[in-house]
Amino acid sequence: MPDLTLTTFDWVPPPPRGFVRDLRVRWALEEAALPYRVASAPFDGRGAEHLAHQPFGQVPWLTDGDLSIFESGAILLHLGGLSTKLMPSDPRGRNEATEWLFAALNSVEMASLPWTMSKFMGHPSDTAAWKFVDDFLKLRLKHMEAVLANREWLAGTFSVADILMSDVLRIVDQFDGLADSPACRAYVARATARPAFAKARSDQMAHFAAADATR
Amino acid sequence: MPDLTLTTFDWVPPPPRGFVRDLRVRWALEEAALPYRVASAPFDGRGAEHLAHQPFGQVPWLTDGDLSIFESGAILLHLGGLSTKLMPSDPRGRNEATEWLFAALNSVEMASLPWTMSKFMGHPSDTAAWKFVDDFLKLRLKHMEAVLANREWLAGTFSVADILMSDVLRIVDQFDGLADSPACRAYVARATARPAFAKARSDQMAHFAAADATR
Repeated sequence: MPDLTLTTFDWVPPPPRGFVRDLRVRWALEEAALPYRVASAPFDGRGAEHLAHQPFGQVPWLTDGDLSIFESGAILLHLGGLSTKLMPSDPRGRNEATEWLFAALNSVEMASLPWTMSKFMGHPSDTAAWKFVDDFLKLRLKHMEAVLANREWLAGTFSVADILMSDVLRIVDQFDGLADSPACRAYVARATARPAFAKARSDQMAHFAAADATR
Repeated sequence: MPDLTLTTFDWVPPPPRGFVRDLRVRWALEEAALPYRVASAPFDGRGAEHLAHQPFGQVPWLTDGDLSIFESGAILLHLGGLSTKLMPSDPRGRNEATEWLFAALNSVEMASLPWTMSKFMGHPSDTAAWKFVDDFLKLRLKHMEAVLANREWLAGTFSVADILMSDVLRIVDQFDGLADSPACRAYVARATARPAFAKARSDQMAHFAAADATR
């Protein structure tokens, strides 16, 4: 039996709540019904102990016994090896889940993160920089739309690839970026309707809300 | 013995030559001394056959027998499983190589790609959008500088994580973005001094140059 502890911040300000990346890990753990503990690292001040686990001073990281893993993609790949509810065990299915897991991060989030950050920070939309960012995301969504028009989940059955891809697209949807991508929007709705997502999200909200009282 | 075919474009215009992502795969294959063939997909027009292998219409993809893999990260992870010259085989070393492989893509390239594209396209540098992009990369480089000041390679020995991280940082260096990050610059120099990198780069240059004659 794996011995799993997920570490996230002890507190974050309200805006990112519901989107902090420990949610991806909670979601996977809930899907697989793997037992886990949640630990906290101080949001104010990232010391040597934090950087030893997460060299960029971010969250989450996961420990499995004496193994400590950072990067949500690496953590989900590790969890995929622990449960067929998260990743098919045959080579072809495992390959599909793995390549789509990377695609969520390096092809889609690569384009969506600059877009959502620009929206969040209210950068002007009449610049060459914005046009590049917007066109880049639209190109990726065009390809994802074609993929998702023909399948329920990316690797045949639900997998960690869907947790990452739908979490990435969910933030675009929050800023109304999926208006012209109905298959992507339906996919996000399908994924976030899963009980494990709801549990992960409400647990994250409760974790950060509990810390409000002591600040 | 694996049966490996790497597919890249038949031709690209001169500016990206030496940086097209098939280089990451060539480099890994050369490091491991794995035999492979190189195949070409048309640069002009990305048909259904191309999209079946690479759903975003990009390159590279790799076939290993009847397995077809896209995303350079997924390809390098697959190759890491074929040779200990690319990834340690013990669980701890394998975990370190894997988390740093994801970090190269999702923590560092996530910040470097908007930065290098802005530089390449000559976006104005007096905007809030540019300041965000520049600050994002500087923050990541600050953390990478601390990591690389204390180690030769990311996972103890040279691994696929170093291929990805040094390839990401190499492009930043091309635009003089490592001037204040001497440990990162020394790491790029160390990685690109490897014979397997030189072979991969010159093979890619020759591949695209050979196609010039027929256009």
